[in-house]
Amino acid sequence: MLLHDESKPKMSSNDPFPRINRRALVSTLAVLPALCGTLLPISAPAQTVTQGGALPSWNEGPAKQAIVDFVRATVDRSSPSYVSPEERVATFDQDGTLWVEHPMYTQVVYCLERVPAVVAKKPELKNAEPFKTVLSGNREAMAKLTLRDLEKILFATLTGMPVEEFNAEVKTWIETARDHRWKRPYTELVYQPMLEVMRHLRDNTYKTYIVTGGGQDFVRVYAEKVYGVPPEQVVGTAGATKYAYGKDGKPFLTKEPKLLLNDNNAGKAEGIHLMIGRRPTAAFGNSGGDREMLEWTGAGSGARLKMLVLHDDAAREYAYGPAQGLPNSKVGTFTQALYDEAKKNGWTVISMKNDWKRIFAFE
Amino acid sequence: MLLHDESKPKMSSNDPFPRINRRALVSTLAVLPALCGTLLPISAPAQTVTQGGALPSWNEGPAKQAIVDFVRATVDRSSPSYVSPEERVATFDQDGTLWVEHPMYTQVVYCLERVPAVVAKKPELKNAEPFKTVLSGNREAMAKLTLRDLEKILFATLTGMPVEEFNAEVKTWIETARDHRWKRPYTELVYQPMLEVMRHLRDNTYKTYIVTGGGQDFVRVYAEKVYGVPPEQVVGTAGATKYAYGKDGKPFLTKEPKLLLNDNNAGKAEGIHLMIGRRPTAAFGNSGGDREMLEWTGAGSGARLKMLVLHDDAAREYAYGPAQGLPNSKVGTFTQALYDEAKKNGWTVISMKNDWKRIFAFE
Repeated sequence: MLLHDESKPKMSSNDPFPRINRRALVSTLAVLPALCGTLLPISAPAQTVTQGGALPSWNEGPAKQAIVDFVRATVDRSSPSYVSPEERVATFDQDGTLWVEHPMYTQVVYCLERVPAVVAKKPELKNAEPFKTVLSGNREAMAKLTLRDLEKILFATLTGMPVEEFNAEVKTWIETARDHRWKRPYTELVYQPMLEVMRHLRDNTYKTYIVTGGGQDFVRVYAEKVYGVPPEQVVGTAGATKYAYGKDGKPFLTKEPKLLLNDNNAGKAEGIHLMIGRRPTAAFGNSGGDREMLEWTGAGSGARLKMLVLHDDAAREYAYGPAQGLPNSKVGTFTQALYDEAKKNGWTVISMKNDWKRIFAFE
Repeated sequence: MLLHDESKPKMSSNDPFPRINRRALVSTLAVLPALCGTLLPISAPAQTVTQGGALPSWNEGPAKQAIVDFVRATVDRSSPSYVSPEERVATFDQDGTLWVEHPMYTQVVYCLERVPAVVAKKPELKNAEPFKTVLSGNREAMAKLTLRDLEKILFATLTGMPVEEFNAEVKTWIETARDHRWKRPYTELVYQPMLEVMRHLRDNTYKTYIVTGGGQDFVRVYAEKVYGVPPEQVVGTAGATKYAYGKDGKPFLTKEPKLLLNDNNAGKAEGIHLMIGRRPTAAFGNSGGDREMLEWTGAGSGARLKMLVLHDDAAREYAYGPAQGLPNSKVGTFTQALYDEAKKNGWTVISMKNDWKRIFAFE
């Protein structure tokens, strides 16, 4: 799930781009290639399992119980639901499932904030639209940017450079940028309860994958450090690269503006087949963009865990989707229709408000 | 590396399709989508490390020494060449590097042998070319098939069906088909010394990947059983799939005739970026199609192992490429030009004749 103009949380004063057409941004972002994670310094996952069980940030309830029961049943050799270790694959959407997606996808914020640096390298863009408007900082004017304008910004900031250069840019940005509500690095806006689920699964020899509509290369830059998920286990929207030789004779790969995998909706099931080649045993999402991933997971035989995060906590995070009684929508949000499908298919809905003792590690 | 009409080993009497245009087949195969490995029964790798060290099928010599030295240096924390465990990535070409590719890629044999089954399902093809000719078994006529004919055969046998159906077909075939020289399953025509290298690397916490010009889905069906490489570590030529719902409401993926990744030449470096997101520390190939993979591997800092298998053993396997003094070629074979590049870049050439005590486990 990326952005959603259906939702109207009370965040307008903190919203840097309040009137940008977010639905257009969703569509555009989905068409964007990605980068690469080879520059990432490797470190242990940020979170550790604390005393008080594997899921200390979860309240007792059906959601926590579903996770605990599923893991116990699938790793117990005497259980009819036993899953062999190599088939223990768990996939997680990122935006809205592992970290905050509201009011704007972090990767879109990155693209907008990268514009000054792109213009510094290509001064001819300084007086060309849409770059001129973004540079002006005039929110009224930025709110009027068209889909085509936004596409230009995204292509200029996500493609055309060697993958290692792009990785370095993202790494620098992700370490220094701050969000507008909590004034913290975006990588601190990850949901502590979900980190605990990932760790609990890995402790039981599940392989955890991120399957995101966001850029595969973008997410790979920080996924190992933030989620404990190595680059080879990040599946995302991905573009072509092009192999060529530098003046020194060394080969390098350039990010091309050509889409290979739109890892949203049906693309998530297709991307899982392409990049993993196994059907997940467990899948976690929060939006219509994750629907096919959960369906694909559920269509396998044996025990399968399918969970959807519901954003119903306006005080601690945001409330949108069915929690707000919003109408159904055709874009990738958590709509009433998705909520109904979850009930029908036995997917477990996670209420942020009721199921999570705390949302963030910094609380 | 796939096929090579430059080479003329003395195998014509055992060659089922002696005059088919193999270069055309190479090009065509490279444009073909792949299947999926989820039906594969999981089992331990076929080979085990026997007494006498990690590489018992290798003769003492510079090739064995290069492998032993590289592994020792990169896992020793006190070594200047130390590589952290998560960066221990080794990539292996398949055809000609891990198993026999001569006189025809196994996947092409599969496609030709699948024709009767395809026609049984679509009787309208029985009297249509090129299927009629393949069904006739007339080698004279088959040798005259055009590139376009062969494309039709490959598309008919590799696309258009649900991935699980295709996996099942490949699994059945690979268990029952026999090659024409040794009269054995193709999966026994794997090089025992290379299995030992893979095992030795894994024993030292290297992750072993197959990076093949062959179909990703095709190879995934047997890679875990034959090489100990799980589906998620097989990178190959891959096509799009399409998500849809069956009459029972269950989703399924259909293999589409649309190429996503041509995993040959530069496509191998691009595919490694797409599917792994890390630069390999070690890479093994045997042909011009592996050149960029070895260059990409070698362009990283620190210790890197780059090896090329030279087919110079006409008695125990085949001799072709520079071993036969053949001229340079533009297709993906081990040419004199590649041999020269190997020497220049410090890549280690493995002589099958001199470096390998035995070629196959059944010897």
